Amino acid sequence: MDRSHRIDCLQYANWTEKIFRQMRQGELDAVHVTLAYHESFREAVRNIQDWNSRLDCHRDLIIPGRTGEDVRRARESGRTAVFFGFQNCSPIEGDVGLVEIVYRLGIRFMQLSYNNQSLLATGCYEAVDSGITRMGRQVIKEMNRVGLAIDMSHSAERSTLEAIELSERPTAITHANPAFWHGARRNKSTDVLRALGESGGMLGFSTYPHHLKDRSACSLESFCEMIARTAEVMGTDHIGFGSDLCQDQPDSVVEWMRVGRWTKEIDYGEGSSDDAGFPRMPIWFRDNRDFGNIETGLRAVGFGDTEIAGIMGENWLRYFDTSFGPS
Amino acid sequence: MDRSHRIDCLQYANWTEKIFRQMRQGELDAVHVTLAYHESFREAVRNIQDWNSRLDCHRDLIIPGRTGEDVRRARESGRTAVFFGFQNCSPIEGDVGLVEIVYRLGIRFMQLSYNNQSLLATGCYEAVDSGITRMGRQVIKEMNRVGLAIDMSHSAERSTLEAIELSERPTAITHANPAFWHGARRNKSTDVLRALGESGGMLGFSTYPHHLKDRSACSLESFCEMIARTAEVMGTDHIGFGSDLCQDQPDSVVEWMRVGRWTKEIDYGEGSSDDAGFPRMPIWFRDNRDFGNIETGLRAVGFGDTEIAGIMGENWLRYFDTSFGPS
Repeated sequence: MDRSHRIDCLQYANWTEKIFRQMRQGELDAVHVTLAYHESFREAVRNIQDWNSRLDCHRDLIIPGRTGEDVRRARESGRTAVFFGFQNCSPIEGDVGLVEIVYRLGIRFMQLSYNNQSLLATGCYEAVDSGITRMGRQVIKEMNRVGLAIDMSHSAERSTLEAIELSERPTAITHANPAFWHGARRNKSTDVLRALGESGGMLGFSTYPHHLKDRSACSLESFCEMIARTAEVMGTDHIGFGSDLCQDQPDSVVEWMRVGRWTKEIDYGEGSSDDAGFPRMPIWFRDNRDFGNIETGLRAVGFGDTEIAGIMGENWLRYFDTSFGPS
Repeated sequence: MDRSHRIDCLQYANWTEKIFRQMRQGELDAVHVTLAYHESFREAVRNIQDWNSRLDCHRDLIIPGRTGEDVRRARESGRTAVFFGFQNCSPIEGDVGLVEIVYRLGIRFMQLSYNNQSLLATGCYEAVDSGITRMGRQVIKEMNRVGLAIDMSHSAERSTLEAIELSERPTAITHANPAFWHGARRNKSTDVLRALGESGGMLGFSTYPHHLKDRSACSLESFCEMIARTAEVMGTDHIGFGSDLCQDQPDSVVEWMRVGRWTKEIDYGEGSSDDAGFPRMPIWFRDNRDFGNIETGLRAVGFGDTEIAGIMGENWLRYFDTSFGPS
């Protein structure tokens, strides 16, 4: 049997040919990349333009990812399909009509909020979570209509549960881990995981050290045991990876992610004044070449071939097949 | 004694020379006008450009209003000082640095939210009010620093109380009435009125029919008796007018106010499908020529000369003197 498809549903690297080559070494067929954290519409379009140039320049290594079929095409031609996403709704500003526009420009995931309150939903760093707003309900409908997947990775609990409930198509949490394993603000409650699984949604496991038990020192065994426990809550069909790999980024980038332009003061987010920069990745997942380590780890905790194929990418591929474009 | 200054702290008319001449007939020394409901930064700058042209074109009738002194200058030269304001924070987008920029462009009031959830605060039409957000706290600090007045007219209860508490300078509700008189969503609870008065803030009474008891049929006597009851709650020094006069506007404008671009469905706001357009103004306040009627009405319910002077404009003038620019 051919190996299954391998998909990483969240990366934000300082993109270079080196990284695209490492993706090929790691046999990665598709990657979901971030094009906006706090950007306005025009700024996000500029980021799309930059990606369009990259796709053109490195067409021997990467292709535009718009549908599940593109993942198969990438695999067949030995390349990686790149799917665009926004980690915030800032690019649609106050305009529900921009949902269709960003979809046409290639965006396939959009988070409803990023840490803070947005026009649509509450972020996980706010003191109070009021759920999905009036505009949020309209945007969810519109995202469902055009086939732009809803990502709740950085949203707060009530907002996430309401989005899962309100959305007529399965939502995603592209990069986070269960709070039962590591109680970070960004990790998700068992209620959320269960509701996500029951609705047909997907969770992508993060390897970002702030989301890991023992952070950078987290063992592969602990990580894979956590996956096994999560599978008991959600089923093995609703889980995959969203590594949150931020390879080769300078620390100024994590400051932009946290602070954007919403404050003139520093906010350390998941870090602290002593530990303000990007954390060191765990040794078993330094970069895209290490997906094989995770596959080995999954086998060691008892997953079978079909389950491993699902977790490594087939589950995301099924989600891509049914989530992008009109239903 | 010279007559006192007359100030209307909220209008959004379809501006023409006719209206500026009516302001002179009504002896209006200053007016706060709206330049944005849902506009982006660039769109709001366009509205500022339009107003700059109007100010240039009609310099025999109106002057730019930036400080309390401009009200006195306007009065001395027989003109009306025009103060710029935003009814929403959409023009600052996600960027706290735009607070100082819009101040430098002449903006003197900004609402933290308009009916819906904003990045800063909850609006009065949302089901849940989570109060001032993380960005909201930063923006309040910055508005206090530069001297851009905080207006909570369209915000929800908890958000309004928190803004009053968090702001180091007195806030305003430029156009609303007490809910004890007419229980509209836009009108304010006695808790809010009391907190506003105690903090040194200002309430501007609205003549917009949806905010009036008996709406368009509201009597001048009922309106002025309401003012007397409000003075008992807040004191006579913290009240004035914000008529919310939307003179000569087509009904498409009220639809823009309500719907902006946040929904593809119609939302009737304070109106209804049977009564979707602008309501008819009460007969005692058809337009700017009728401020004399209100003065007469205030006298009839027992206010004395000094109190009337305060309510007609001296209270707002004192607020302008201390609220605009660095303290």
